[in-house]
Amino acid sequence: MNFSSKLLEKAVNEVSQLPGIGKRTALRLVLHLLKQPTINTHHLANSLTTLVDEIKLCKQCHNISDVEICEICSAVSRNSEIICVVEDVRDVMAIENTAQYKGLYHVLGGKISPIEGIGPHNLTIESLVEKVQKGLVKEVIFALSSTIEGDTTNFYIFKQLEKYQIKTSTIARGIAVGDELEYADEVTLGRSILNRIPFENSL
Amino acid sequence: MNFSSKLLEKAVNEVSQLPGIGKRTALRLVLHLLKQPTINTHHLANSLTTLVDEIKLCKQCHNISDVEICEICSAVSRNSEIICVVEDVRDVMAIENTAQYKGLYHVLGGKISPIEGIGPHNLTIESLVEKVQKGLVKEVIFALSSTIEGDTTNFYIFKQLEKYQIKTSTIARGIAVGDELEYADEVTLGRSILNRIPFENSL
Repeated sequence: MNFSSKLLEKAVNEVSQLPGIGKRTALRLVLHLLKQPTINTHHLANSLTTLVDEIKLCKQCHNISDVEICEICSAVSRNSEIICVVEDVRDVMAIENTAQYKGLYHVLGGKISPIEGIGPHNLTIESLVEKVQKGLVKEVIFALSSTIEGDTTNFYIFKQLEKYQIKTSTIARGIAVGDELEYADEVTLGRSILNRIPFENSL
Repeated sequence: MNFSSKLLEKAVNEVSQLPGIGKRTALRLVLHLLKQPTINTHHLANSLTTLVDEIKLCKQCHNISDVEICEICSAVSRNSEIICVVEDVRDVMAIENTAQYKGLYHVLGGKISPIEGIGPHNLTIESLVEKVQKGLVKEVIFALSSTIEGDTTNFYIFKQLEKYQIKTSTIARGIAVGDELEYADEVTLGRSILNRIPFENSL
């Protein structure tokens, strides 16, 4: 690209560092900002720098939070004996949106992935084990995505927790509500038959 | 969305103001920034605020520039008697990339579009007419996109310049180099036949 301005070039280069944003999209976004009042860009820039400077991770569940202990961990209405293990903050948001879960979370910060160089010690597994060791946890629910990395991570954590007398469970895999059977993949359909539940429980 | 942090929510809301970026993409981008070193986000934020605070429009061609008169307008090697009228800086960059044009530009800043509330007075048409009035321009090339708005804008400017004895031209429309005839639309193919050029000129 043949930039007429070094400032423009620098901004486009910075924006195109973001994942999934190429040079052309970056140029479109930056030109959009130039058409807006200057104050909008200042608001955008401030919100980003304030975020990265002031954000905390909850000391208990490692979720993104504005305070030391996040709203979920400090809520008295929640059952602290059940811990749901998730990959990142997006999974917490997704489960919270269902309004079906009243336990606490434990955010791993990723999945074990030798290819990406992520080992168990890059995740918050140790702190989960410590929580269980203290004897205050009755059930750990694994809610990682069902990929090879997710399954490996589940299994690794399961092995760490095996010696403590707690219940471990994993979220149900099956046909999504509203989906047609004929379009489901075989593995999911197979699991949904193996893991069938009493009809009265589905009502 | 159920945010666990006000700072995160604010940043996601700001990023999702950008065109073509929804809440989910904004969340993905912001979480990416949180995984990077803090300094990266500061660089990004600084490059954007510096851009909007310090960018100038060239006083001659209205192109985005770091200085009062842009590199193209101030280059002695360029032919200042030919002016190519374009919509915005991206068009200047596209034409510059061809290395085929040695005249100057005039950036309109948009196209006449009653639907979007953009009239001739929101564009830099007046300053183009002034340039022509001074008698230093010999040819004006229209290089707007061939949409209704583009054609309207071309025609409006053409009418303004009619009384001055200058040449006006428009970039050639036709089959793109490398394209198959059978897939070309009829309008383009029709124009390419009407506006055929002597074979020896195409060599």
